[in-house]
Amino acid sequence: MIITEKTENYLKSLIAETISCAKSGHTGSALGASTMMLALFHDHLKFNPKDPSFMNRDRFVLSAGHTSAMYYSLLHLFGYDLTMNDLKNFRKYGSKTPGHPEYNVVPGVETTTGPLGQGIANAVGLALAETIFSAKFNDKQNKLFDNYTYCYAGDGCLMEGVGMEACSVAGTLGLNKLILLYDNNDITIDGRREIANKEDTAKKFASMNWNVITVKNGMDYNACTKAIASAKTSKKPTIIIFNTIIGVGTSVQGTNKVHAYPLPPEELAQFKQSLGVQESFFVPEDVYAFCREAVTRNQKFYDSYMLSLKALKTNSPEKFKELSLWLSPRKINYDSVLKAIGNDELAGRDISHIVLNKIASLLPSLFGGTADVSPSTKAYIENGGDYSSENRLARNIHYGIREHAMGSISNGISLYAKTPVFDSTFMAFSNYMLPSIKMRAMMNLPIISIFTHDSIDIGEDGPTHQPIEQIGALRQIVGLKVFRPATKEETVAGFKYFVESKSPVVMSMTKSKLKAQENSSIEGAMQGGYTIFETSKTPKVIIFATGTEVALAVSVAKELSVPARVVSMPCEKLFSEQPASYKNKVLAKDALKVAIEASDDSIWYKYIGTDGLLINVTDYQFSGKGSEVYEKAGFNKDNILKQINKKLNA
Amino acid sequence: MIITEKTENYLKSLIAETISCAKSGHTGSALGASTMMLALFHDHLKFNPKDPSFMNRDRFVLSAGHTSAMYYSLLHLFGYDLTMNDLKNFRKYGSKTPGHPEYNVVPGVETTTGPLGQGIANAVGLALAETIFSAKFNDKQNKLFDNYTYCYAGDGCLMEGVGMEACSVAGTLGLNKLILLYDNNDITIDGRREIANKEDTAKKFASMNWNVITVKNGMDYNACTKAIASAKTSKKPTIIIFNTIIGVGTSVQGTNKVHAYPLPPEELAQFKQSLGVQESFFVPEDVYAFCREAVTRNQKFYDSYMLSLKALKTNSPEKFKELSLWLSPRKINYDSVLKAIGNDELAGRDISHIVLNKIASLLPSLFGGTADVSPSTKAYIENGGDYSSENRLARNIHYGIREHAMGSISNGISLYAKTPVFDSTFMAFSNYMLPSIKMRAMMNLPIISIFTHDSIDIGEDGPTHQPIEQIGALRQIVGLKVFRPATKEETVAGFKYFVESKSPVVMSMTKSKLKAQENSSIEGAMQGGYTIFETSKTPKVIIFATGTEVALAVSVAKELSVPARVVSMPCEKLFSEQPASYKNKVLAKDALKVAIEASDDSIWYKYIGTDGLLINVTDYQFSGKGSEVYEKAGFNKDNILKQINKKLNA
Repeated sequence: MIITEKTENYLKSLIAETISCAKSGHTGSALGASTMMLALFHDHLKFNPKDPSFMNRDRFVLSAGHTSAMYYSLLHLFGYDLTMNDLKNFRKYGSKTPGHPEYNVVPGVETTTGPLGQGIANAVGLALAETIFSAKFNDKQNKLFDNYTYCYAGDGCLMEGVGMEACSVAGTLGLNKLILLYDNNDITIDGRREIANKEDTAKKFASMNWNVITVKNGMDYNACTKAIASAKTSKKPTIIIFNTIIGVGTSVQGTNKVHAYPLPPEELAQFKQSLGVQESFFVPEDVYAFCREAVTRNQKFYDSYMLSLKALKTNSPEKFKELSLWLSPRKINYDSVLKAIGNDELAGRDISHIVLNKIASLLPSLFGGTADVSPSTKAYIENGGDYSSENRLARNIHYGIREHAMGSISNGISLYAKTPVFDSTFMAFSNYMLPSIKMRAMMNLPIISIFTHDSIDIGEDGPTHQPIEQIGALRQIVGLKVFRPATKEETVAGFKYFVESKSPVVMSMTKSKLKAQENSSIEGAMQGGYTIFETSKTPKVIIFATGTEVALAVSVAKELSVPARVVSMPCEKLFSEQPASYKNKVLAKDALKVAIEASDDSIWYKYIGTDGLLINVTDYQFSGKGSEVYEKAGFNKDNILKQINKKLNA
Repeated sequence: MIITEKTENYLKSLIAETISCAKSGHTGSALGASTMMLALFHDHLKFNPKDPSFMNRDRFVLSAGHTSAMYYSLLHLFGYDLTMNDLKNFRKYGSKTPGHPEYNVVPGVETTTGPLGQGIANAVGLALAETIFSAKFNDKQNKLFDNYTYCYAGDGCLMEGVGMEACSVAGTLGLNKLILLYDNNDITIDGRREIANKEDTAKKFASMNWNVITVKNGMDYNACTKAIASAKTSKKPTIIIFNTIIGVGTSVQGTNKVHAYPLPPEELAQFKQSLGVQESFFVPEDVYAFCREAVTRNQKFYDSYMLSLKALKTNSPEKFKELSLWLSPRKINYDSVLKAIGNDELAGRDISHIVLNKIASLLPSLFGGTADVSPSTKAYIENGGDYSSENRLARNIHYGIREHAMGSISNGISLYAKTPVFDSTFMAFSNYMLPSIKMRAMMNLPIISIFTHDSIDIGEDGPTHQPIEQIGALRQIVGLKVFRPATKEETVAGFKYFVESKSPVVMSMTKSKLKAQENSSIEGAMQGGYTIFETSKTPKVIIFATGTEVALAVSVAKELSVPARVVSMPCEKLFSEQPASYKNKVLAKDALKVAIEASDDSIWYKYIGTDGLLINVTDYQFSGKGSEVYEKAGFNKDNILKQINKKLNA
């Protein structure tokens, strides 16, 4: 038996055994795709298991994350810090081998996957980032950034809208170093693929400006490796369609039964026997040696790369400095950012435009874009140029009307070298990209979303464009900080938090003008919530508000006949993380508690309790003039004063 | 000047004037597409402006909802109940002519549009429903259901993932009476389409099994009408690519400036002059007469259709009865549904499977499907067959791995004849379809979503598959009722509410087994929340819980040393709608308030206030055995008892 075949057999055995041992997992695709993946790892992938995150590695994304047992088995074979014991602990609580690949948990994993389609879009982002870094830092002597991005995907990822949107972006932008390995096994959970999808995948990708390669037998090692070699020379992104048999070699191969089918002990034994494997969780030395060939080849590359990096420091100190600046941005003086805004009364989206531009001038590695709404959300770096296949250093990416892909591509860009990224659309359409925002929150990626037109006061476009539940849905995502600033200071604070924490932030910005507030401050906002106005240190009424509603709350507080305090709460989650001593200082125990927000979020009950007063939006509103819609929904001084006084007198 | 040209000119003038008068709206596409739309309305569309919802009308969906001024102008010209005054009130508060077309607000509008891509998917659903109804009720004598579904779309709708997913479904299912009118003007908000999209649209649709027709000059009336006539004979769904010029005839035609560009008064005057229109908000009699030709032609069809419907009642009373049953389903005995479940301890998803099947046997017009997870969510009608181009009466639709399109196609199916629909996926992936759920909530459509695997206790698949924020995000949607049942009775209640209210419902179902509760009842659950267990009528501790956590709460209450009550709250929104007298009976004023939910939703602060105890999920969890993940996240009796006692002793 030749060594490739022997390795394939031991790999398949390891996969089946890992899943069988966990009594949970996805045997089907993991077996069918094992040959193509072995060819990728052995013959093509540029990696270093001892330094899995070295800058110029090839990126590999397992978009069909449920085939994790295959991935982990490969990582083990190719020398990553995953032991046989880790495989035995597959899917066990706290293990290094969770059910789906997790970023920062499994060595070598580039991005957390599981929700289908996300991984493809991450891969597009990774490939896009490579074009930026290589355009910026490569020269004839040095190729600091010169890697491929490989992505393994199944039918699910290619049906998901987010995957298709991202592939369309990749074709448009000519990301030729992106190679999509499509495991075409004609089977999905429900049955044969054709019951839900009769597309001609090859034609579809060709229509999106992709290079298409078909491998008739995607379980033939040599054919697989040849196809990958060919893809690497393409001037377009490439999809390789590997025809495979799901669960190949099992009793239920080629059917949907094998999708999530841990082989029962008896069948596992038969399966291993058919592969010529006697041992349990065991790999013979010649198989390890075969895999080490790739490690050794890569080590040579790695060593010379590290030398060239060292040489760069000596020979091109300026360039090295610039690289450092891109990778670990300098400190920012936020007072100077504040000054750049000036003192004119501006709309939230205009303030965030200025702040974004000022920050962008200080953080050269900040790139981003919008889903075809840059003139409206103003999330655009002036003189930054428009990113395209001809202009890889332009800083504004046009994602087209593809919010979901934008979100996931942002994740990918940021994953490439942990650089800051922005994206943007209307708040109403943030729900199109919620799944991608959740993924970035889970991975804690430094991405700032600028969501404008953030309340019913946008008016004429009507209820489909007036956000109500969106802000609350975002606030609910663990690990995501949502800022809804009332002032320029609070806007700067949101960006400051983003830059300093290197974690995901959403900026909820108004279309309408924001009023200045005397006591507004970056420092206050950085604590999530703070007293922005009060008529007494012992208030009888305390009003919590955000964004546009803060000015309204202050105008109400000024006219109340009892002492009042207004707490601006740009970021509730940040406030909730403050020490009790600070929180108690801001909150007032025996006061009537009121919250005002032109949105629908139950978070305010946390502060007003069961007896407080919540003035929010509880129904879809009319299309009409913004100020009229706003006022008629109850957001006017008279109504609020009346309601508070009624409560006070009750 | 021939009459078509004259009509085009007055239509364009009306559009420009409507937007100009509102000083808000989208002139660009509305002008470029006016000719093709006029050809559709005059020569092809089957409609009756006096009875806009008659059963066998053609369906028309304006997927690019921002071109509403064009649509409203056409509705006016073709005799719908929209006056010149309504056009003058375009985008004004409370008008019949809101910024985007709204279902139940604008006469003739089949679905609310605005968020791009949704309309295409609705159209796919409408076309799919037609295949069901026509297969069921048509015979040689009668064609009760025999209509086309037309959908107007721009670049945005074709870039959005939800649109592309839906088109793939339409091609797979051979929905040949679906005709997509693609307004190809090469311009998006950000600039030329090619900066974000270089696809070959014709090739792409061909790859998805669509018939493709290209109209070189989409502003040539005869060419447009010929193309539509050809599309009507296709055996596949058809896309007609109309090449147009955005904002044709204005000073900024062919550029992105005209997208949302109300013509200033001076330019409006020039524009009208170039069209030979002197008057303001005026249509000459010969133009009205031209449009009336279509109304008259359609009236003849309508009259004969109504006669055939009458004849059916006389000649085929059985079929007529069946039709009535499909359109206005009979009352259901829910106790018999409950009996069908039996007394075995079952998982939530198994209970909803039984209830769905029982309900389906009583509601023959209930159709639905899943996003490739029917073996897991068990939302499958046994012996209902698998819907395909060969089997139009099969009741289970396989949407493939396309949650978002599933949601919007469900909306379309339900819109066809206001019949009940179900859809289903894992709760974790409900966020892929959130925008479509919002649309159905806005339109109040009778659709039930069965979202299973509804908490971290799904275990091994890990944090990407463990829902945390999803339930809260759904609860936040205005007009949507979320049921998270603890028992079989509460599950039946959710379905009962869905059937009786004819409004959208989400069922949050467990993968794990639910324990029986002695005091659980359909009646209690129908009030949203009720006392399911208490050790005293004057409790010192009141615990709110849902789903799996109810049994846990009861076990805790039994061991507390003070009197306790457990309130099961399967549907908080429904509870909040109850009269104060009922709510006060359930709530206990002076008790310590505790809420337990294996999820992250701030709604519970509404009940526990600022001093209560919330036991929920506040971070992403590990991959591991379900029960282990659940317990280690704090959902075990000892931890909860400890926390409550600590609070009681504080």
